[in-house]
Amino acid sequence: MTEQSILNWLRKQKNVEGIGDDCAVLNEWLVTTDMFIEDIHFLRSLPPETCGYRALARGLSDIAAMGGDPRWCLLSLALADWCGERWVRGFYRGLLKLAEKFAVKLVGGDLSHSNRVTADIVVIGFAPKGKALRRDGARVGDGIYVSGALGGRPVLPEPRIAFGKKLRGRASACMDLSDGLSLDLKRLCEASGVAAVIDLPLPVAPGATIEQALHAGEDYELLYTAPRKAGGTRIGTIVRGKPGRVEFFGRKLAAKGYDHFRSNRGD
Amino acid sequence: MTEQSILNWLRKQKNVEGIGDDCAVLNEWLVTTDMFIEDIHFLRSLPPETCGYRALARGLSDIAAMGGDPRWCLLSLALADWCGERWVRGFYRGLLKLAEKFAVKLVGGDLSHSNRVTADIVVIGFAPKGKALRRDGARVGDGIYVSGALGGRPVLPEPRIAFGKKLRGRASACMDLSDGLSLDLKRLCEASGVAAVIDLPLPVAPGATIEQALHAGEDYELLYTAPRKAGGTRIGTIVRGKPGRVEFFGRKLAAKGYDHFRSNRGD
Repeated sequence: MTEQSILNWLRKQKNVEGIGDDCAVLNEWLVTTDMFIEDIHFLRSLPPETCGYRALARGLSDIAAMGGDPRWCLLSLALADWCGERWVRGFYRGLLKLAEKFAVKLVGGDLSHSNRVTADIVVIGFAPKGKALRRDGARVGDGIYVSGALGGRPVLPEPRIAFGKKLRGRASACMDLSDGLSLDLKRLCEASGVAAVIDLPLPVAPGATIEQALHAGEDYELLYTAPRKAGGTRIGTIVRGKPGRVEFFGRKLAAKGYDHFRSNRGD
Repeated sequence: MTEQSILNWLRKQKNVEGIGDDCAVLNEWLVTTDMFIEDIHFLRSLPPETCGYRALARGLSDIAAMGGDPRWCLLSLALADWCGERWVRGFYRGLLKLAEKFAVKLVGGDLSHSNRVTADIVVIGFAPKGKALRRDGARVGDGIYVSGALGGRPVLPEPRIAFGKKLRGRASACMDLSDGLSLDLKRLCEASGVAAVIDLPLPVAPGATIEQALHAGEDYELLYTAPRKAGGTRIGTIVRGKPGRVEFFGRKLAAKGYDHFRSNRGD
Protein backbone atom coordinates (compact mmCIF):
# COMPACT_ATOMS: atom_id res chain seq x y z
CA MET A 1 0.00 0.00 0.00
CA THR A 2 1.50 3.35 -1.05
CA GLU A 3 0.09 6.86 -0.89
CA GLN A 4 -0.26 6.64 -4.67
CA SER A 5 -2.20 3.37 -4.59
CA ILE A 6 -4.63 4.79 -2.04
CA LEU A 7 -5.10 7.92 -4.17
CA ASN A 8 -5.52 5.88 -7.36
CA TRP A 9 -8.22 3.79 -5.76
CA LEU A 10 -9.89 6.79 -4.15
CA ARG A 11 -10.12 8.68 -7.46
CA LYS A 12 -12.33 5.93 -8.85
CA GLN A 13 -14.91 6.24 -6.05
CA LYS A 14 -18.14 8.23 -6.31
CA ASN A 15 -18.27 11.75 -4.81
CA VAL A 16 -14.53 12.25 -5.18
CA GLU A 17 -13.22 15.07 -7.34
CA GLY A 18 -9.81 16.47 -8.30
CA ILE A 19 -7.86 14.72 -5.54
CA GLY A 20 -4.06 14.65 -5.76
CA ASP A 21 -3.03 18.26 -6.31
CA ASP A 22 -1.53 20.27 -3.47
CA CYS A 23 -4.83 22.04 -2.91
CA ALA A 24 -8.41 21.40 -3.84
CA VAL A 25 -9.70 23.94 -6.36
CA LEU A 26 -13.19 25.19 -5.48
CA ASN A 27 -14.03 27.70 -8.15
CA GLU A 28 -11.40 30.31 -7.42
CA TRP A 29 -10.96 29.26 -3.81
CA LEU A 30 -8.08 27.05 -2.74
CA VAL A 31 -8.20 24.91 0.36
CA THR A 32 -5.33 22.80 1.64
CA THR A 33 -4.86 20.63 4.71
CA ASP A 34 -1.52 19.45 6.07
CA MET A 35 -0.73 17.36 9.08
CA PHE A 36 2.21 18.07 11.36
CA ILE A 37 2.83 15.20 13.75
CA GLU A 38 5.27 14.70 16.62
CA ASP A 39 8.03 12.18 15.79
CA ILE A 40 7.00 12.24 12.12
CA HIS A 41 7.33 15.87 11.12
CA PHE A 42 9.03 17.27 14.22
CA LEU A 43 10.66 16.27 17.49
CA ARG A 44 9.59 17.41 20.92
CA SER A 45 12.95 19.16 21.32
CA LEU A 46 12.07 21.68 18.58
CA PRO A 47 11.12 25.07 20.07
CA PRO A 48 7.32 25.47 20.08
CA GLU A 49 7.51 28.72 18.08
CA THR A 50 9.34 26.82 15.34
CA CYS A 51 6.73 24.04 15.41
CA GLY A 52 3.89 26.54 14.99
CA TYR A 53 5.75 28.33 12.21
CA ARG A 54 6.46 25.11 10.33
CA ALA A 55 2.90 23.80 10.70
CA LEU A 56 1.53 26.89 8.95
CA ALA A 57 4.44 27.10 6.49
CA ARG A 58 3.46 23.69 5.08
CA GLY A 59 -0.03 24.93 4.27
CA LEU A 60 1.15 28.28 2.90
CA SER A 61 3.62 26.47 0.64
CA ASP A 62 0.76 24.45 -0.86
CA ILE A 63 -1.11 27.67 -1.61
CA ALA A 64 2.08 29.09 -3.17
CA ALA A 65 2.39 25.95 -5.31
CA MET A 66 -1.02 26.69 -6.82
CA GLY A 67 -0.21 30.38 -7.43
CA GLY A 68 -2.68 31.40 -4.73
CA ASP A 69 -3.14 34.22 -2.26
CA PRO A 70 -3.56 32.84 1.28
CA ARG A 71 -6.30 34.49 3.35
CA TRP A 72 -7.47 32.37 6.29
CA CYS A 73 -6.34 29.38 8.27
CA LEU A 74 -7.86 26.95 10.76
CA LEU A 75 -5.86 24.81 13.15
CA SER A 76 -6.85 21.44 14.55
CA LEU A 77 -4.48 20.72 17.40
CA ALA A 78 -4.31 17.59 19.54
CA LEU A 79 -2.03 18.20 22.52
CA ALA A 80 -0.06 15.57 24.42
CA ASP A 81 0.32 15.35 28.19
CA TRP A 82 3.82 16.78 27.99
CA CYS A 83 2.59 20.08 26.51
CA GLY A 84 2.48 22.82 29.11
CA GLU A 85 0.80 26.17 28.71
CA ARG A 86 4.12 27.74 27.70
CA TRP A 87 4.50 25.27 24.86
CA VAL A 88 0.96 25.82 23.60
CA ARG A 89 1.34 29.59 23.66
CA GLY A 90 4.71 29.33 21.94
CA PHE A 91 3.21 27.15 19.21
CA TYR A 92 0.42 29.65 18.51
CA ARG A 93 2.87 32.55 18.71
CA GLY A 94 5.08 31.03 16.01
CA LEU A 95 2.09 30.25 13.83
CA LEU A 96 0.54 33.69 14.24
CA LYS A 97 3.82 35.48 13.55
CA LEU A 98 4.05 33.79 10.16
CA ALA A 99 0.31 34.35 9.60
CA GLU A 100 0.77 38.06 10.16
CA LYS A 101 3.58 38.22 7.62
CA PHE A 102 1.16 37.04 4.93
CA ALA A 103 -1.92 38.80 6.35
CA VAL A 104 -3.54 35.42 7.03
CA LYS A 105 -6.19 35.29 9.78
CA LEU A 106 -6.70 32.30 12.07
CA VAL A 107 -10.49 31.84 12.00
CA GLY A 108 -11.16 28.52 13.70
CA GLY A 109 -10.09 24.96 14.35
CA ASP A 110 -10.42 22.22 16.89
CA LEU A 111 -8.64 21.37 20.15
CA SER A 112 -8.17 17.80 21.27
CA HIS A 113 -5.54 15.59 22.85
CA SER A 114 -3.54 12.54 21.87
CA ASN A 115 -0.35 10.78 22.89
CA ARG A 116 1.58 12.68 20.22
CA VAL A 117 1.11 16.33 19.39
CA THR A 118 -0.82 16.34 16.14
CA ALA A 119 -1.59 19.50 14.23
CA ASP A 120 -3.61 19.78 11.05
CA ILE A 121 -3.45 23.14 9.37
CA VAL A 122 -6.13 24.24 6.93
CA VAL A 123 -5.25 27.20 4.72
CA ILE A 124 -7.82 28.90 2.52
CA GLY A 125 -6.73 31.17 -0.27
CA PHE A 126 -7.72 32.07 -3.77
CA ALA A 127 -6.48 32.47 -7.29
CA PRO A 128 -8.23 34.16 -10.19
CA LYS A 129 -10.64 31.64 -11.70
CA GLY A 130 -8.83 29.34 -14.09
CA LYS A 131 -5.41 30.67 -13.02
CA ALA A 132 -4.58 28.24 -10.24
CA LEU A 133 -1.40 26.29 -11.09
CA ARG A 134 -1.71 22.54 -11.32
CA ARG A 135 0.76 19.73 -11.66
CA ASP A 136 -0.74 18.07 -14.72
CA GLY A 137 0.03 20.62 -17.44
CA ALA A 138 3.73 20.06 -18.23
CA ARG A 139 4.35 19.78 -22.00
CA VAL A 140 7.17 18.22 -23.99
CA GLY A 141 9.79 20.91 -24.58
CA ASP A 142 9.00 22.93 -21.43
CA GLY A 143 11.92 23.91 -19.26
CA ILE A 144 12.04 22.61 -15.66
CA TYR A 145 12.80 25.23 -13.01
CA VAL A 146 13.15 25.53 -9.24
CA SER A 147 12.59 28.70 -7.23
CA GLY A 148 15.71 28.43 -5.03
CA ALA A 149 18.52 26.35 -3.56
CA LEU A 150 17.74 22.71 -2.77
CA GLY A 151 18.68 20.36 0.06
CA GLY A 152 19.07 23.01 2.73
CA ARG A 153 16.11 21.96 4.86
CA PRO A 154 15.69 25.43 6.37
CA VAL A 155 14.39 25.53 9.93
CA LEU A 156 12.03 28.39 9.11
CA PRO A 157 11.26 27.95 5.41
CA GLU A 158 9.84 30.95 3.59
CA PRO A 159 6.63 30.04 1.72
CA ARG A 160 7.10 31.14 -1.91
CA ILE A 161 3.80 33.01 -2.18
CA ALA A 162 5.07 35.92 -4.30
CA PHE A 163 7.00 33.55 -6.58
CA GLY A 164 3.90 31.38 -7.07
CA LYS A 165 1.72 34.35 -7.95
CA LYS A 166 4.25 35.46 -10.58
CA LEU A 167 3.89 32.04 -12.23
CA ARG A 168 0.16 32.47 -12.91
CA GLY A 169 -0.44 32.29 -16.63
CA ARG A 170 3.24 31.49 -17.24
CA ALA A 171 3.95 28.08 -15.72
CA SER A 172 2.44 25.00 -17.37
CA ALA A 173 2.72 22.99 -14.13
CA CYS A 174 3.85 23.69 -10.57
CA MET A 175 4.15 22.06 -7.16
CA ASP A 176 6.12 22.60 -3.98
CA LEU A 177 9.13 20.47 -3.07
CA SER A 178 7.89 19.03 0.18
CA ASP A 179 8.97 15.43 -0.42
CA GLY A 180 12.21 15.89 -2.36
CA LEU A 181 12.95 16.78 -6.00
CA SER A 182 13.34 13.19 -7.25
CA LEU A 183 9.92 12.09 -5.97
CA ASP A 184 8.07 15.34 -6.59
CA LEU A 185 9.34 15.71 -10.18
CA LYS A 186 8.29 12.11 -10.79
CA ARG A 187 4.80 12.95 -9.50
CA LEU A 188 4.57 16.06 -11.67
CA CYS A 189 5.62 14.04 -14.71
CA GLU A 190 3.17 11.24 -13.93
CA ALA A 191 0.33 13.73 -13.54
CA SER A 192 1.29 15.36 -16.85
CA GLY A 193 1.97 12.12 -18.73
CA VAL A 194 5.54 13.10 -19.61
CA ALA A 195 9.17 12.34 -18.72
CA ALA A 196 11.95 14.65 -17.57
CA VAL A 197 15.65 15.14 -18.09
CA ILE A 198 17.78 16.96 -15.53
CA ASP A 199 20.92 18.05 -17.39
CA LEU A 200 21.83 21.38 -15.81
CA PRO A 201 23.62 21.99 -12.48
CA LEU A 202 21.26 21.94 -9.49
CA PRO A 203 21.27 24.99 -7.24
CA VAL A 204 22.53 23.22 -4.13
CA ALA A 205 21.99 24.92 -0.76
CA PRO A 206 25.17 25.89 1.15
CA GLY A 207 26.44 22.90 3.10
CA ALA A 208 24.15 20.42 1.32
CA THR A 209 25.24 17.55 -0.92
CA ILE A 210 23.86 16.80 -4.38
CA GLU A 211 22.16 13.73 -2.89
CA GLN A 212 20.36 15.99 -0.43
CA ALA A 213 19.43 18.43 -3.19
CA LEU A 214 17.92 15.54 -5.13
CA HIS A 215 16.15 13.63 -2.40
CA ALA A 216 15.76 15.66 0.81
CA GLY A 217 12.22 16.85 1.40
CA GLU A 218 10.98 19.96 3.16
CA ASP A 219 12.69 22.36 0.81
CA TYR A 220 9.43 24.17 0.24
CA GLU A 221 10.90 25.66 -2.91
CA LEU A 222 8.64 25.61 -5.97
CA LEU A 223 9.21 23.26 -8.89
CA TYR A 224 7.64 24.42 -12.14
CA THR A 225 7.65 23.83 -15.85
CA ALA A 226 7.18 26.52 -18.48
CA PRO A 227 7.86 27.25 -22.14
CA ARG A 228 9.90 30.29 -21.00
CA LYS A 229 11.72 31.04 -17.75
CA ALA A 230 9.62 32.96 -15.22
CA GLY A 231 12.14 33.17 -12.37
CA GLY A 232 14.42 30.78 -10.49
CA THR A 233 16.94 28.34 -11.99
CA ARG A 234 16.50 26.03 -14.94
CA ILE A 235 17.53 22.44 -14.20
CA GLY A 236 16.28 20.49 -17.22
CA THR A 237 13.64 19.82 -19.85
CA ILE A 238 10.35 17.96 -20.17
CA VAL A 239 10.66 15.19 -22.76
CA ARG A 240 8.54 12.49 -24.34
CA GLY A 241 8.86 9.16 -22.52
CA LYS A 242 7.38 6.84 -19.94
CA PRO A 243 5.21 9.05 -17.69
CA GLY A 244 7.10 9.76 -14.49
CA ARG A 245 10.53 8.71 -15.74
CA VAL A 246 13.24 11.16 -14.63
CA GLU A 247 16.78 11.09 -16.01
CA PHE A 248 19.68 12.78 -14.21
CA PHE A 249 22.70 13.44 -16.44
CA GLY A 250 22.04 10.39 -18.60
CA ARG A 251 20.98 7.94 -15.87
CA LYS A 252 17.56 7.00 -14.55
CA LEU A 253 16.96 8.83 -11.26
CA ALA A 254 15.44 6.74 -8.47
CA ALA A 255 12.64 8.50 -6.60
CA LYS A 256 14.05 8.38 -3.08
CA GLY A 257 11.95 11.25 -1.77
CA TYR A 258 9.62 10.83 1.14
CA ASP A 259 6.46 8.73 0.85
CA HIS A 260 4.52 8.17 4.07
CA PHE A 261 3.51 4.67 3.08
CA ARG A 262 6.75 3.23 1.78
CA SER A 263 9.47 1.41 3.66
CA ASN A 264 11.45 4.62 4.17
CA ARG A 265 8.83 5.95 6.54
CA GLY A 266 10.24 7.81 9.46
CA ASP A 267 13.35 8.88 7.51
CA MET B 1 -46.56 46.51 -12.85
CA THR B 2 -43.82 48.34 -10.95
CA GLU B 3 -40.23 47.47 -10.22
CA GLN B 4 -41.33 46.93 -6.65
CA SER B 5 -44.15 44.59 -7.55
CA ILE B 6 -41.86 42.51 -9.72
CA LEU B 7 -39.31 42.34 -6.92
CA ASN B 8 -41.96 41.50 -4.37
CA TRP B 9 -43.15 38.64 -6.47
CA LEU B 10 -39.65 37.49 -7.32
CA ARG B 11 -38.62 37.37 -3.67
CA LYS B 12 -41.27 34.78 -2.95
CA GLN B 13 -40.03 32.39 -5.61
CA LYS B 14 -37.81 29.44 -4.89
CA ASN B 15 -34.06 29.79 -5.48
CA VAL B 16 -34.21 33.54 -5.14
CA GLU B 17 -32.39 35.25 -2.30
CA GLY B 18 -31.64 38.79 -1.17
CA ILE B 19 -32.78 40.48 -4.35
CA GLY B 20 -33.50 44.21 -4.38
CA ASP B 21 -30.49 45.73 -2.67
CA ASP B 22 -27.96 47.77 -4.60
CA CYS B 23 -25.52 44.92 -4.60
CA ALA B 24 -25.96 41.19 -4.37
CA VAL B 25 -25.06 39.85 -0.95
CA LEU B 26 -23.44 36.49 -1.35
CA ASN B 27 -23.61 33.59 0.99
CA GLU B 28 -21.46 33.29 4.05
CA TRP B 29 -19.06 30.44 3.89
CA LEU B 30 -18.76 28.14 6.85
CA VAL B 31 -15.66 26.08 7.49
CA THR B 32 -15.27 23.60 10.32
CA THR B 33 -12.51 21.21 11.34
CA ASP B 34 -12.90 18.26 13.69
CA MET B 35 -10.40 15.71 14.84
CA PHE B 36 -11.22 12.04 15.22
CA ILE B 37 -8.46 10.20 17.06
CA GLU B 38 -7.93 6.54 17.93
CA ASP B 39 -8.39 5.82 21.66
CA ILE B 40 -9.88 9.29 22.17
CA HIS B 41 -12.86 9.37 19.82
CA PHE B 42 -12.96 5.75 18.73
CA LEU B 43 -11.44 2.34 19.41
CA ARG B 44 -9.63 0.17 16.91
CA SER B 45 -12.37 -2.42 17.27
CA LEU B 46 -14.95 -0.12 15.65
CA PRO B 47 -15.68 -1.13 12.04
CA PRO B 48 -13.78 1.14 9.61
CA GLU B 49 -16.99 2.14 7.80
CA THR B 50 -18.37 3.38 11.12
CA CYS B 51 -15.16 5.31 11.81
CA GLY B 52 -15.34 7.05 8.44
CA TYR B 53 -19.02 7.81 8.90
CA ARG B 54 -18.49 9.26 12.36
CA ALA B 55 -15.50 11.37 11.31
CA LEU B 56 -17.60 13.13 8.67
CA ALA B 57 -20.73 13.22 10.85
CA ARG B 58 -18.86 15.37 13.39
CA GLY B 59 -18.12 17.99 10.76
CA LEU B 60 -21.58 17.87 9.20
CA SER B 61 -23.12 18.34 12.63
CA ASP B 62 -21.12 21.54 13.09
CA ILE B 63 -22.45 22.86 9.78
CA ALA B 64 -25.99 21.88 10.88
CA ALA B 65 -25.47 23.79 14.13
CA MET B 66 -24.85 26.96 12.11
CA GLY B 67 -27.89 26.40 9.89
CA GLY B 68 -25.63 25.72 6.94
CA ASP B 69 -25.70 23.70 3.75
CA PRO B 70 -22.64 21.43 3.54
CA ARG B 71 -20.95 21.31 0.13
CA TRP B 72 -17.37 20.03 0.28
CA CYS B 73 -15.08 18.18 2.64
CA LEU B 74 -11.35 17.51 2.93
CA LEU B 75 -9.85 14.72 5.00
CA SER B 76 -6.44 14.69 6.65
CA LEU B 77 -5.75 11.12 7.64
CA ALA B 78 -2.72 9.78 9.51
CA LEU B 79 -2.73 5.98 9.38
CA ALA B 80 -1.16 3.67 11.94
CA ASP B 81 0.85 0.55 11.19
CA TRP B 82 -2.12 -1.66 12.07
CA CYS B 83 -4.25 -0.20 9.26
CA GLY B 84 -4.43 -2.51 6.28
CA GLU B 85 -5.77 -1.62 2.89
CA ARG B 86 -9.17 -3.10 3.80
CA TRP B 87 -9.43 -0.81 6.79
CA VAL B 88 -8.48 2.27 4.77
CA ARG B 89 -10.99 1.51 2.05
CA GLY B 90 -13.68 0.78 4.63
CA PHE B 91 -13.02 4.11 6.31
CA TYR B 92 -13.37 6.05 3.06
CA ARG B 93 -16.39 3.98 2.08
CA GLY B 94 -18.22 4.90 5.30
CA LEU B 95 -17.27 8.54 4.90
CA LEU B 96 -18.30 8.72 1.25
CA LYS B 97 -21.61 6.99 1.87
CA LEU B 98 -22.58 9.71 4.32
CA ALA B 99 -21.14 12.36 1.98
CA GLU B 100 -23.37 11.14 -0.82
CA LYS B 101 -26.46 11.38 1.37
CA PHE B 102 -25.86 15.11 1.76
CA ALA B 103 -24.41 15.67 -1.74
CA VAL B 104 -21.07 16.59 -0.19
CA LYS B 105 -17.95 16.14 -2.36
CA LEU B 106 -14.57 15.06 -1.00
CA VAL B 107 -12.19 17.49 -2.72
CA GLY B 108 -8.82 17.01 -1.02
CA GLY B 109 -6.89 16.37 2.16
CA ASP B 110 -3.62 14.97 3.35
CA LEU B 111 -2.30 11.44 3.97
CA SER B 112 0.26 10.77 6.67
CA HIS B 113 1.04 8.23 9.36
CA SER B 114 1.25 8.18 13.15
CA ASN B 115 1.11 5.67 15.96
CA ARG B 116 -2.63 6.29 16.37
CA VAL B 117 -5.06 6.74 13.54
CA THR B 118 -5.80 10.45 13.44
CA ALA B 119 -8.38 11.97 11.15
CA ASP B 120 -9.18 15.63 10.79
CA ILE B 121 -12.26 16.39 8.76
CA VAL B 122 -12.79 19.79 7.17
CA VAL B 123 -16.32 20.57 6.01
CA ILE B 124 -17.15 23.64 3.95
CA GLY B 125 -20.70 24.83 3.60
CA PHE B 126 -22.67 28.02 3.37
CA ALA B 127 -25.62 29.89 4.73
CA PRO B 128 -27.42 32.90 3.27
CA LYS B 129 -25.58 36.05 4.35
CA GLY B 130 -26.47 37.04 7.90
CA LYS B 131 -28.48 33.86 8.46
CA ALA B 132 -25.81 31.60 9.96
CA LEU B 133 -26.81 30.52 13.48
CA ARG B 134 -24.47 31.43 16.31
CA ARG B 135 -24.30 30.56 19.95
CA ASP B 136 -24.15 34.10 21.34
CA GLY B 137 -27.65 35.37 20.57
CA ALA B 138 -29.82 33.77 23.29
CA ARG B 139 -32.10 36.35 24.97
CA VAL B 140 -33.83 36.36 28.34
CA GLY B 141 -37.28 34.80 27.87
CA ASP B 142 -36.32 32.59 24.92
CA GLY B 143 -37.33 28.95 25.14
CA ILE B 144 -34.61 26.28 25.14
CA TYR B 145 -35.14 23.39 22.73
CA VAL B 146 -33.43 20.22 21.56
CA SER B 147 -33.92 18.55 18.19
CA GLY B 148 -34.26 14.97 19.46
CA ALA B 149 -33.74 12.39 22.18
CA LEU B 150 -30.64 12.77 24.35
CA GLY B 151 -28.15 10.32 25.85
CA GLY B 152 -28.51 7.63 23.21
CA ARG B 153 -25.01 7.96 21.76
CA PRO B 154 -26.08 6.59 18.38
CA VAL B 155 -23.42 4.62 16.51
CA LEU B 156 -24.31 6.32 13.23
CA PRO B 157 -25.68 9.72 14.26
CA GLU B 158 -27.74 11.60 11.68
CA PRO B 159 -26.42 15.14 11.18
CA ARG B 160 -29.38 17.50 11.67
CA ILE B 161 -28.82 19.50 8.48
CA ALA B 162 -32.49 19.94 7.55
CA PHE B 163 -33.41 20.84 11.12
CA GLY B 164 -30.63 23.44 11.26
CA LYS B 165 -31.72 25.05 8.01
CA LYS B 166 -35.28 25.34 9.33
CA LEU B 167 -33.92 27.33 12.29
CA ARG B 168 -32.50 30.11 10.09
CA GLY B 169 -34.16 33.37 11.01
CA ARG B 170 -36.03 31.68 13.85
CA ALA B 171 -33.47 30.55 16.45
CA SER B 172 -31.65 33.20 18.49
CA ALA B 173 -28.76 30.80 19.22
CA CYS B 174 -27.84 27.25 18.26
CA MET B 175 -25.10 24.66 18.69
CA ASP B 176 -24.75 20.91 18.40
CA LEU B 177 -24.63 18.63 21.43
CA SER B 178 -21.23 17.07 20.90
CA ASP B 179 -19.96 17.35 24.48
CA GLY B 180 -23.15 16.81 26.48
CA LEU B 181 -26.13 19.05 27.29
CA SER B 182 -24.85 20.27 30.66
CA LEU B 183 -21.55 21.55 29.24
CA ASP B 184 -22.85 22.72 25.88
CA LEU B 185 -25.79 24.66 27.37
CA LYS B 186 -23.36 26.29 29.78
CA ARG B 187 -21.19 27.33 26.81
CA LEU B 188 -24.16 28.71 24.90
CA CYS B 189 -25.23 30.70 27.98
CA GLU B 190 -21.71 32.01 28.57
CA ALA B 191 -21.42 33.12 24.95
CA SER B 192 -24.80 34.87 25.19
CA GLY B 193 -24.25 36.36 28.66
CA VAL B 194 -27.34 34.69 30.12
CA ALA B 195 -28.40 31.86 32.46
CA ALA B 196 -30.73 28.92 31.84
CA VAL B 197 -33.40 26.98 33.67
CA ILE B 198 -34.27 23.43 32.65
CA ASP B 199 -37.73 22.76 34.10
CA LEU B 200 -39.38 20.51 31.54
CA PRO B 201 -38.92 16.76 31.03
CA LEU B 202 -35.89 15.92 28.89
CA PRO B 203 -36.50 13.73 25.85
CA VAL B 204 -34.40 10.80 27.00
CA ALA B 205 -33.25 8.27 24.37
CA PRO B 206 -34.55 4.69 24.80
CA GLY B 207 -32.33 2.82 27.26
CA ALA B 208 -30.54 5.97 28.44
CA THR B 209 -30.65 7.43 31.94
CA ILE B 210 -31.34 11.07 32.81
CA GLU B 211 -27.69 11.38 33.81
CA GLN B 212 -26.68 10.27 30.31
CA ALA B 213 -29.19 12.65 28.72
CA LEU B 214 -27.67 15.49 30.75
CA HIS B 215 -23.98 14.73 30.42
CA ALA B 216 -23.22 12.20 27.67
CA GLY B 217 -21.64 13.75 24.62
CA GLU B 218 -21.85 12.72 20.98
CA ASP B 219 -25.59 13.15 20.75
CA TYR B 220 -25.21 15.38 17.74
CA GLU B 221 -28.70 16.70 18.32
CA LEU B 222 -29.12 20.45 18.04
CA LEU B 223 -29.63 22.70 21.05
CA TYR B 224 -31.28 26.01 20.24
CA THR B 225 -33.00 28.97 21.82
CA ALA B 226 -35.85 30.91 20.25
CA PRO B 227 -38.74 33.21 21.15
CA ARG B 228 -41.09 30.65 19.57
CA LYS B 229 -40.78 26.91 19.03
CA ALA B 230 -39.36 25.98 15.63
CA GLY B 231 -39.28 22.19 16.00
CA GLY B 232 -38.04 19.66 18.55
CA THR B 233 -38.78 19.60 22.27
CA ARG B 234 -38.78 22.48 24.72
CA ILE B 235 -36.76 21.78 27.86
CA GLY B 236 -36.54 25.17 29.58
CA THR B 237 -36.12 28.93 29.44
CA ILE B 238 -33.30 31.46 29.17
CA VAL B 239 -33.24 33.68 32.27
CA ARG B 240 -31.29 36.58 33.68
CA GLY B 241 -28.40 35.45 35.88
CA LYS B 242 -24.71 34.69 36.11
CA PRO B 243 -23.61 33.99 32.53
CA GLY B 244 -23.30 30.24 32.05
CA ARG B 245 -25.28 29.22 35.13
CA VAL B 246 -27.66 26.35 34.39
CA GLU B 247 -30.38 25.24 36.80
CA PHE B 248 -32.01 21.83 36.54
CA PHE B 249 -35.37 21.58 38.37
CA GLY B 250 -34.32 24.09 41.02
CA ARG B 251 -30.71 22.99 41.53
CA LYS B 252 -27.50 24.20 39.99
CA LEU B 253 -26.43 21.77 37.25
CA ALA B 254 -22.75 20.83 37.21
CA ALA B 255 -21.22 20.84 33.73
CA LYS B 256 -20.00 17.27 33.56
CA GLY B 257 -19.84 17.09 29.79
CA TYR B 258 -16.66 16.27 27.96
CA ASP B 259 -13.79 18.74 27.98
CA HIS B 260 -10.51 17.60 26.42
CA PHE B 261 -8.43 19.56 28.89
CA ARG B 262 -10.08 18.75 32.17
CA SER B 263 -9.33 15.90 34.51
CA ASN B 264 -12.04 13.70 32.98
CA ARG B 265 -10.02 13.36 29.79
CA GLY B 266 -10.24 9.94 28.27
CA ASP B 267 -13.71 9.30 29.72
